[in-house]
Amino acid sequence: MTIATMQALRKPRPEPGAQIESVPVPAARPGEVVVRVRAASICGTDLHIYHWDAWSASRLRPPLTFGHEFCGVVESAGEGVTRFERGDRVTAEMHVACGHCRPCRAGQQHVCQNVRILGIDQDGCFAEFVSVPATNLWKLDATIPDRYAAIMDPLGNAVHSVLAGPIAGATVAVTGCGPIGLMSIAVAKACGCSTLYATEISPHRAKLAQEMGADLVLNPREGDAAARVVSETAGAGVDVLLEMSGNPAAIRQGFEMLRPGGRASLLGIPSEPVTLDLLRDVIFKGATVLGIYGRRMFETWLQMDALLRDGRLKLDPLFKERLRLCDYTRAFELLEQGAAGKVLLVPNGAE
Amino acid sequence: MTIATMQALRKPRPEPGAQIESVPVPAARPGEVVVRVRAASICGTDLHIYHWDAWSASRLRPPLTFGHEFCGVVESAGEGVTRFERGDRVTAEMHVACGHCRPCRAGQQHVCQNVRILGIDQDGCFAEFVSVPATNLWKLDATIPDRYAAIMDPLGNAVHSVLAGPIAGATVAVTGCGPIGLMSIAVAKACGCSTLYATEISPHRAKLAQEMGADLVLNPREGDAAARVVSETAGAGVDVLLEMSGNPAAIRQGFEMLRPGGRASLLGIPSEPVTLDLLRDVIFKGATVLGIYGRRMFETWLQMDALLRDGRLKLDPLFKERLRLCDYTRAFELLEQGAAGKVLLVPNGAE
Amino acid sequence: MTIATMQALRKPRPEPGAQIESVPVPAARPGEVVVRVRAASICGTDLHIYHWDAWSASRLRPPLTFGHEFCGVVESAGEGVTRFERGDRVTAEMHVACGHCRPCRAGQQHVCQNVRILGIDQDGCFAEFVSVPATNLWKLDATIPDRYAAIMDPLGNAVHSVLAGPIAGATVAVTGCGPIGLMSIAVAKACGCSTLYATEISPHRAKLAQEMGADLVLNPREGDAAARVVSETAGAGVDVLLEMSGNPAAIRQGFEMLRPGGRASLLGIPSEPVTLDLLRDVIFKGATVLGIYGRRMFETWLQMDALLRDGRLKLDPLFKERLRLCDYTRAFELLEQGAAGKVLLVPNGAE
Amino acid sequence: MTIATMQALRKPRPEPGAQIESVPVPAARPGEVVVRVRAASICGTDLHIYHWDAWSASRLRPPLTFGHEFCGVVESAGEGVTRFERGDRVTAEMHVACGHCRPCRAGQQHVCQNVRILGIDQDGCFAEFVSVPATNLWKLDATIPDRYAAIMDPLGNAVHSVLAGPIAGATVAVTGCGPIGLMSIAVAKACGCSTLYATEISPHRAKLAQEMGADLVLNPREGDAAARVVSETAGAGVDVLLEMSGNPAAIRQGFEMLRPGGRASLLGIPSEPVTLDLLRDVIFKGATVLGIYGRRMFETWLQMDALLRDGRLKLDPLFKERLRLCDYTRAFELLEQGAAGKVLLVPNGAE
Repeated sequence: MTIATMQALRKPRPEPGAQIESVPVPAARPGEVVVRVRAASICGTDLHIYHWDAWSASRLRPPLTFGHEFCGVVESAGEGVTRFERGDRVTAEMHVACGHCRPCRAGQQHVCQNVRILGIDQDGCFAEFVSVPATNLWKLDATIPDRYAAIMDPLGNAVHSVLAGPIAGATVAVTGCGPIGLMSIAVAKACGCSTLYATEISPHRAKLAQEMGADLVLNPREGDAAARVVSETAGAGVDVLLEMSGNPAAIRQGFEMLRPGGRASLLGIPSEPVTLDLLRDVIFKGATVLGIYGRRMFETWLQMDALLRDGRLKLDPLFKERLRLCDYTRAFELLEQGAAGKVLLVPNGAE
Repeated sequence: MTIATMQALRKPRPEPGAQIESVPVPAARPGEVVVRVRAASICGTDLHIYHWDAWSASRLRPPLTFGHEFCGVVESAGEGVTRFERGDRVTAEMHVACGHCRPCRAGQQHVCQNVRILGIDQDGCFAEFVSVPATNLWKLDATIPDRYAAIMDPLGNAVHSVLAGPIAGATVAVTGCGPIGLMSIAVAKACGCSTLYATEISPHRAKLAQEMGADLVLNPREGDAAARVVSETAGAGVDVLLEMSGNPAAIRQGFEMLRPGGRASLLGIPSEPVTLDLLRDVIFKGATVLGIYGRRMFETWLQMDALLRDGRLKLDPLFKERLRLCDYTRAFELLEQGAAGKVLLVPNGAE
Repeated sequence: MTIATMQALRKPRPEPGAQIESVPVPAARPGEVVVRVRAASICGTDLHIYHWDAWSASRLRPPLTFGHEFCGVVESAGEGVTRFERGDRVTAEMHVACGHCRPCRAGQQHVCQNVRILGIDQDGCFAEFVSVPATNLWKLDATIPDRYAAIMDPLGNAVHSVLAGPIAGATVAVTGCGPIGLMSIAVAKACGCSTLYATEISPHRAKLAQEMGADLVLNPREGDAAARVVSETAGAGVDVLLEMSGNPAAIRQGFEMLRPGGRASLLGIPSEPVTLDLLRDVIFKGATVLGIYGRRMFETWLQMDALLRDGRLKLDPLFKERLRLCDYTRAFELLEQGAAGKVLLVPNGAE
Repeated sequence: MTIATMQALRKPRPEPGAQIESVPVPAARPGEVVVRVRAASICGTDLHIYHWDAWSASRLRPPLTFGHEFCGVVESAGEGVTRFERGDRVTAEMHVACGHCRPCRAGQQHVCQNVRILGIDQDGCFAEFVSVPATNLWKLDATIPDRYAAIMDPLGNAVHSVLAGPIAGATVAVTGCGPIGLMSIAVAKACGCSTLYATEISPHRAKLAQEMGADLVLNPREGDAAARVVSETAGAGVDVLLEMSGNPAAIRQGFEMLRPGGRASLLGIPSEPVTLDLLRDVIFKGATVLGIYGRRMFETWLQMDALLRDGRLKLDPLFKERLRLCDYTRAFELLEQGAAGKVLLVPNGAE
């Protein structure tokens, strides 16, 4: 009997770099589904893995196929799987929650204390096939195009950030216009937010922010962005801050823009501890500050599905390039150049 | 015609200290009510005013009668006041909201952008009489004793902190057992919380914390309090953090104790910016962090009223001493010695 | 000294009908503002008052100027009013809350137990001038046209209904497409709802519902609308029901359409008790059923302001005709013919 | 090889009655755990099954072992079960959610559209052993006694009802003092509610209600209970209604007691459609009405665990009698006599 093999983008050893290898096609274990990947997308985390930063070194155990953003079609289903069949078009939540820890029991699987992430803790989607627990698979509506379906993981981060509190009729500031910041602009607008202010230092991203629907994009290097936003809101500050940069200065600026009684969703990942004027910016303001991680399972997916189905969300400015999986070197280069936008990787066999 | 005078504890000039002065009894302006003070209580803020710290110097405009915690009986009511009459026993919310700014319009008067605080921005309650807007007066149930009625302002801080999110069945950590920390222990217990852990370095306050209902009181100088709490909660961390110290190290420790998906109410007042591991302690945890300022107008007052009426709250360990208003020097000395607890001041004429 | 007079549409006696009378222009009492009316709009309640139904007879005390939907410009401000000045363009919340009852103290002024409604309990806006407490006045952004400003009272009902729970990404059913039902369709769509189903028996209103953004409008007389909606939602039912008809059969149908765990906002006014299958439709479904009355003070106004400012809401199909105040007979006739839509009345002196 | 057998209380045929039969001990299938039952408790639903009412006839497919309230110890665990081992003391949520329907995906597994209930849709716990999916098993703290552990299913109904909205500081009415009504009294009190009014026509149950902590118990046959409660609350009505009777007249009375802006949890099961004054009691009141079904998975379990662990809940007045499983006839008789309280059944082999 011949074991089928496939091409996969792998981190073979605990060191910088990656390479295409030929590995066995995964078999569908009980409760799992094997999906033929049509398009994968590269996350900032994948760049960290590629370059093997401190976090990667502490968490990953090569060899490993990485990648966790994708869409595809069901190839085969393991024992006990009843809701999916060959040919179903799907994407997946790649965080697999344990179901038993206190957060899971409290309905907060997105911060499961024993989470296992496909593409990080076990083989992911930068390959022709990927095996995923059926519980985590999401059947795609026919009206959602592949390129949108392939980025539902980061789009879910944006939707989670925006809808973690009231948004309709709220004034909003988005600090940082990387891919998730840009998506959050489109999502907030589609959900009825009022005036939306964005901050961004890259002129290219600033332009994208406007295309996504920002009413005013400010460059924090060219004047006091916080003072400007407070002034634009008649001295009140914004109702909602969506912090998407992880940059300590931008975080502080965002809090200055926030009105008393406002809500901040923090998603951007700071690379070091951050010094905050907690008294002025959080305590005396009576602010609500929400840490945002992952996507709610699966409230966020229901919301995304609805937003994508009816074509309300226009995400096309986000997409940069579509490359073959074997051209991964160029894909990572493109992203390193710092231009916001998503690069899609297409495995062999997918058109 | 003789103008009646009264004794008041005043800050006569912008400098340290205070003195008893004879001043005119306030007249009830339209919409206001003059209350004969039966007992006033001293807040930490009053100590700052007494010593004239930087904040006091920037905000207060002497001469001023300070003090904002009290109870008394209605002496006279101004034009247009229909709900209060001479003899009604009352206390008051001393933050007067403007009613028109965005937070006020959004139902968040406790963070009004134009708030006027009696005892800080205009004459307060360290006197025989105080004049208060009728909107801010709270009629007292006969079963609530004067000493409890006189501290409903700080008790409201505690109730606001505890009830800003779910508490029934939740495990809790209280960091810092000053008066409001101690009250929050009693409140959380009365509202059905699960195991409650407290941290405190003063042995005297630690003992009070146990009397108020804490299940375990830890001294953070005698071992890793955060590690201990995580271990006591089977590795999960607590559902709710009530940060009552304002101490940067305690704040960081509190966040370490918080479980993923947990809620932190921050009330303690840090005297400087605080450096936080935002990524680990807030973002990756998906935490909800709530700045707590003042009391919700007037949801918190309804809740306090209910908790005090039925005698569920046992706050007696809190009360230290009861002095005449003219003995204020000794009162401030007692508080400076750092023992938690409330000191009551009784004006002349009140028994 | 001459007392200025004005024309007003009055209910002179407790009986059907109304008439234009010449009455004194109101003087601005302390805390009140006199507004020169530019456009008033007719509510269903005004029709009831006009015809003097049982409810009107039990509540109103003629003589009275009725009407409670309008916009205008400030003419004069009474003592103590600091935030409005002659020439400001305004509309108003005409429910005046007492501020002291338990709902008011709990932040629910919209269900104040001692509410006083202008145009019902005291003189309203079907006149050249109306006097309104400054607390209840709402300054209008220059970009909001008069016709929209004049209907912010019923628009507020719609916004309150839609935003009383999550709406972004939710499937919605609107039962009954009168003016508020139609507005709620536009509001739900502007706030990011998913597929929206509406039911309506009048072909004219059904057409309007589509113009306002409904995805599918069903005539409940031409088939089982509930079964159809359940089938369209893959057997699930809708996430949100907005009940706008008050019709018992439509209410029951609406509940049949609601999915387990869904939310129903009930705003339509039934004229009789309603028999519900509480067990199947509410209890076993774990449904959340919200009674909707008035508008939240003033959260709903902030939301409306934001939705109207940016021109997102397209309400033009709603407007039928614009008549002089003295042509009120024709205005009431138009509305009695049952066509949905708002009729504006323009007093003398307003262009 | 001998197949082990056990005694089970079975519904052998679709008709009234039940009988003890000898059946094979269940084997632990993959993902399931076989539990040796120590004590089972009888639900009102079990009485319906015993008497074979219309609902039972439409849903159950005999032969079937019924019963769904119990506690026991793990006997064996099927393939893939890692968190439980022989000897663990456990109880279980007997509603098994599908995990894929819209309510499940929205975090509302308690109203799963494809729920499978053990003891109704497949074999339950009136037996020496019962097999339960590991996901639904709940490990018991050593401090929770068996009799309490055996009734966590109905206690969960009570906790879900009480904690479905704010309760601390709230005035409460409980209409109907059957077992779940009685438990909800103790739960509301333990969670810091204010004055609690109960209605009940049986003097025996009324006495139990007082023992559980009700402040005032009214017999609705001896005067206007709703008017009395409104009067006791100074004309306001209660903040929270817990409807536990299912009786249409009591439901209407409960709504009359509810204050404007209040919250009603409806858990009692009406046997017919209910006619409500929706306008007065729900819409004009701006009420929040919550259908309560089952227990939230597993937020409610975490809350129960916390309330039971610390011994705060005193439920002992509830327990009537403890009988051998084979004495089931007497057990059902006791319950039919209408006395509130829980009857425990103890299988052979359990002491």
